[in-house]
Amino acid sequence: MKERFEILETTIHTLLQAKKYMTLRDILVTMNPNDIAQTLGELEEERIPLLFRLLPKELAAETFVEMETDAQEMLIQGFSDTELKEIVDELYVDDAADLVEEMPANVVKRILKQATPEMRNSINQILRYPENSAGSIMTTEYVALRPNMTVAESIKQIRRKGVDKETIYTCYVTENRALIGVVSVKDLLLAPNDDIEISEIMLTNVISVTTLADQEEVAQMMSKYHFLAMPVVDSDNRMVGIVTFDDAMTVLEDEVTEDIALMAGMTPSEESYLKSTPWEMFKHRIPWLILLMVSATFTGMIITGFEDALAAQAVLTAFIPMLMGTGGNSGSQSSVMVIRALSLGELKLEHIGKVIWKEIRTAVLCGVALGAACFAKLILVDKMLLGNGDITVLVAGVITLAMAATVLLAKLVGCVLPMIAKRLGFDPAVMASPFITTIVDALSLLIYFMFATAILHL
Amino acid sequence: MKERFEILETTIHTLLQAKKYMTLRDILVTMNPNDIAQTLGELEEERIPLLFRLLPKELAAETFVEMETDAQEMLIQGFSDTELKEIVDELYVDDAADLVEEMPANVVKRILKQATPEMRNSINQILRYPENSAGSIMTTEYVALRPNMTVAESIKQIRRKGVDKETIYTCYVTENRALIGVVSVKDLLLAPNDDIEISEIMLTNVISVTTLADQEEVAQMMSKYHFLAMPVVDSDNRMVGIVTFDDAMTVLEDEVTEDIALMAGMTPSEESYLKSTPWEMFKHRIPWLILLMVSATFTGMIITGFEDALAAQAVLTAFIPMLMGTGGNSGSQSSVMVIRALSLGELKLEHIGKVIWKEIRTAVLCGVALGAACFAKLILVDKMLLGNGDITVLVAGVITLAMAATVLLAKLVGCVLPMIAKRLGFDPAVMASPFITTIVDALSLLIYFMFATAILHL
Repeated sequence: MKERFEILETTIHTLLQAKKYMTLRDILVTMNPNDIAQTLGELEEERIPLLFRLLPKELAAETFVEMETDAQEMLIQGFSDTELKEIVDELYVDDAADLVEEMPANVVKRILKQATPEMRNSINQILRYPENSAGSIMTTEYVALRPNMTVAESIKQIRRKGVDKETIYTCYVTENRALIGVVSVKDLLLAPNDDIEISEIMLTNVISVTTLADQEEVAQMMSKYHFLAMPVVDSDNRMVGIVTFDDAMTVLEDEVTEDIALMAGMTPSEESYLKSTPWEMFKHRIPWLILLMVSATFTGMIITGFEDALAAQAVLTAFIPMLMGTGGNSGSQSSVMVIRALSLGELKLEHIGKVIWKEIRTAVLCGVALGAACFAKLILVDKMLLGNGDITVLVAGVITLAMAATVLLAKLVGCVLPMIAKRLGFDPAVMASPFITTIVDALSLLIYFMFATAILHL
Repeated sequence: MKERFEILETTIHTLLQAKKYMTLRDILVTMNPNDIAQTLGELEEERIPLLFRLLPKELAAETFVEMETDAQEMLIQGFSDTELKEIVDELYVDDAADLVEEMPANVVKRILKQATPEMRNSINQILRYPENSAGSIMTTEYVALRPNMTVAESIKQIRRKGVDKETIYTCYVTENRALIGVVSVKDLLLAPNDDIEISEIMLTNVISVTTLADQEEVAQMMSKYHFLAMPVVDSDNRMVGIVTFDDAMTVLEDEVTEDIALMAGMTPSEESYLKSTPWEMFKHRIPWLILLMVSATFTGMIITGFEDALAAQAVLTAFIPMLMGTGGNSGSQSSVMVIRALSLGELKLEHIGKVIWKEIRTAVLCGVALGAACFAKLILVDKMLLGNGDITVLVAGVITLAMAATVLLAKLVGCVLPMIAKRLGFDPAVMASPFITTIVDALSLLIYFMFATAILHL
């Protein structure tokens, strides 16, 4: 498929060079809007409007939605008022609201001027909801049916009103604006006869979310229930809009990208990797680096505190990185698993006891295995094979014990901290590797030096 | 919503105690299959079949699909052949194939015996495709139309055949089994009149995947194009099945979970966190821990190699954790961003030059900022405020220079390794924090000691 698309792109460039606009138009109308947007995005800027104007109205609007923000702005700047109105009229309300949110003030003014009063109202309504809420990603366009309509009347209603609705496949049954039922186009088409009333075939135990529900939760519910659209109601169960499945998929992807950035110690960015400038990347990365660098001072202070012990047994210094590394890795394994399970909704805060008990048993297994491997390596490789005379059985014992204890502690800290963060209302993802590693580094050093002073009498 | 569901669960438990089975049935039929499955999952094992048998056939099958594997097995063991046949008949082919894949041999035998010869064929066909391919997650049930059918005939066809098809909203137009067009139910319902032929309204530039396409790529294409279903064709463009959007969403979630596990140095597990036993978790975690522990030996060897230098300037030891930590964090920031961008398809291998150049500029910014912060902290806090006499301007200079150089190198290694892994056909996610950290640890120590010996003449 990819190859075919690349061949198509080359053809389009060639035709553009040769100014064969009618042929170009014939090719473009057969393409998917997303692919057209991608093709346009790779042209020189001054050619984009030229190619864009070849598109028929509806396809133009669909392509416009898929384009990058800067290309959208450039196009609008070049549009006449009539051209802008044609695009705006074809947009779904949720896409129009996204556009208004991303454009600079002077462009927004022009867009809103061209929108119908109805659309202007809907856009404003959507923009009023807090960021990341169901209300902010919903569209106010959906197919509403009445309970006493027949199947035939309903299908007629869909045919009459359906053109403007993003998803017609799930219809919502309302009475005095309250959401009382759901019926799918499949149910309508497969109904035993056309005269049955909607109230007889609709599902009445409707699953819905409120406008203020978190968008990630909404998307996860849609995935769990296999919904094409999720109805959004206000606090009085009055239907106000729907979230469509494609927006839910985008939300899931964005939230994952955000979690992953946080887990690696970065402020999440809305830009894609290739679009971010080094300066933006710097701004997203430096705060955490500075914070973690400063907090690493504690580990330095611990080492300074045990300087005399280290001077007496210099061999101990060489195993600091191994201990800290293993501790960090053990801790981040646990924290990352817990963070992911929390964000998938598999794990709830009430499971904390189960989690700790599971991690303790895992940690004991890991600690014993790592300790054994570590002791064997110290004695067999370092002492006997490489002839490192500084490694006595006692020194190996200290390192092994410190290793096992560090693993246990690291796994405990790793599983508990994300749950505490969640309890306190933070995103658990901030409690991933970098943070855990810093804490575990300090703890592992303390344990190491405690064992060393106790066992080796330093 | 969640609260309402919990109240419902309590009600169900109470009714079950009171043996009010008819009331229970009335409640269950209004519930979503996923919620019923969850409710059943929380009952004592011996009560599950009792409640399950209250469900009408179709709802029973839908609920069955949503249940955990062990509960499914337990139910099947208790089913009579007739009961099993009723469930199997209602299953979609892709769900049946999943079931067959997960059940033990004796259960599989019983399932296949109850399946119609047609379904048995389809199941076997799906099972023959390699794991993680489009073929292995597709269903062979879809609505096929002929190009010369009218809209009215098509709708009649959907009504007649639609009950058994998982997704009826996208219909596929075939000629001699070849996929030549796509038409949505929306197009059919909104067609100007009922006598238009499908060939006039169908989309002919069909986007499809082959049976061997990677499931993650398929899911990402569906997300990009907002598809409800993706047609799957064989190497001769003959239609063989469709991947539905709910399966695509599951694929995306599973692939992310897998990536995140790999990124934290674990072998991915198919079990959810709460379902995994400590022994399983141990097996997924220990190989990486041992590997990384052993590779940390190199850092130990580097330290041993510079033991004399460290003995001469003991203060240098205290800053090893800070250097290694900052290097590790810088590197994992870059690697994780690159891994995510690669897996979203935003980044291609051909961008490697751009990526390196972007990371170099970011690294210079980060290096300068961190170096400055580090130098200021050493002089102002450690030397002047805390009166640590061992820190001279030269020592602070060594640490600062090593810090800046480490950041630069860490970011380079961090962005290049995942791309090399991808080029070699590995999952780039294995090149995340733990791996990068281990390499960067060694590099940062080498740099540190080189600067120290050169500048401090040790």
